[in-house]
Amino acid sequence: MEQRLDKTMAVLERTPGALDAMLRGLPEEWTRSNEGEGADGAETWSAFDVVVHLINCEKTDWVPRARTILESKDGEVREFPPFDRWGEIRESRTKPIGEVLDTFARLRAENLAKVRTWQLGPEQLAMRGRHPALGEVTLSELMATWAAHDLNHLHQISRVMAHQYREAVGPWKKFMGVMVCEGHGA
Amino acid sequence: MEQRLDKTMAVLERTPGALDAMLRGLPEEWTRSNEGEGADGAETWSAFDVVVHLINCEKTDWVPRARTILESKDGEVREFPPFDRWGEIRESRTKPIGEVLDTFARLRAENLAKVRTWQLGPEQLAMRGRHPALGEVTLSELMATWAAHDLNHLHQISRVMAHQYREAVGPWKKFMGVMVCEGHGA
Repeated sequence: MEQRLDKTMAVLERTPGALDAMLRGLPEEWTRSNEGEGADGAETWSAFDVVVHLINCEKTDWVPRARTILESKDGEVREFPPFDRWGEIRESRTKPIGEVLDTFARLRAENLAKVRTWQLGPEQLAMRGRHPALGEVTLSELMATWAAHDLNHLHQISRVMAHQYREAVGPWKKFMGVMVCEGHGA
Repeated sequence: MEQRLDKTMAVLERTPGALDAMLRGLPEEWTRSNEGEGADGAETWSAFDVVVHLINCEKTDWVPRARTILESKDGEVREFPPFDRWGEIRESRTKPIGEVLDTFARLRAENLAKVRTWQLGPEQLAMRGRHPALGEVTLSELMATWAAHDLNHLHQISRVMAHQYREAVGPWKKFMGVMVCEGHGA
């Protein structure tokens, strides 16, 4: 289906509540454990780390990129500001999960309020920016990606948590896709 | 990590709230759309269908199987009652999603209350039943699988929803694992 702002916002509004319901108060073995070393030998993310990544994206990715697009003039296509995938993660690990869930919910609500003030129409949504690796993208694609990125990380958190029970489930492991999903690099 | 009842229950308690926060009130294009035809040519499940499947599992899978194990005597290993993967799905599609979310939350709460009355200890958790395809399994593995199965279906719902935006995200598709995940048969 096509990106439509009300459908995109409906997902974006619900993610903080979904993560809160899923993670707040859980034993830390669920929220602080990761999948070990990734295929590239790098450290992987815990559910906690993913929430911090979402916070970092609220601050430095979606809205700043949208502004870059909306502030361009005369058909100019401006490059997005840099984004650090590991931003805030390592230095946030001493925080309680309740605090990062609260921060994420607050930033998301503020950002969606900002987006609503922009009153985006088809003309704005067709405007373009330049992604450092992907080249030209539209504001519509950026908005769709914001929502899909939430789903991508819910998908990841479910997988990272399930990974902790890969031995505990015994022979059932082979019946659950989540146990064999390797994350496809994301 | 090992199955421990408090950790398992902590996940099981949270799933209805997580699904509710994620799905209630969403435009139906998100909740009623599936991934098209599966690799085997069969119809795939929408987010709505998955919640109905979870309801059916609360009724006919976890607790009945646990009872089969706990009611066995003198070291007997009894076969689990049959389970229908498509149970209730097609006939439930006329219901509103709020209704199935309510039903799932109620059944899950009732089942967890039942489990608490059993006061399971190491001796019970080591008891066995026979799965029609997997052979002998322990009650501990069944309990771990109940929780992991929730995560498996949260993983699936995230993927099924993300699938609806696979074109809308434009070139970002290749950066999101959820877009290329094929579900691994689950």
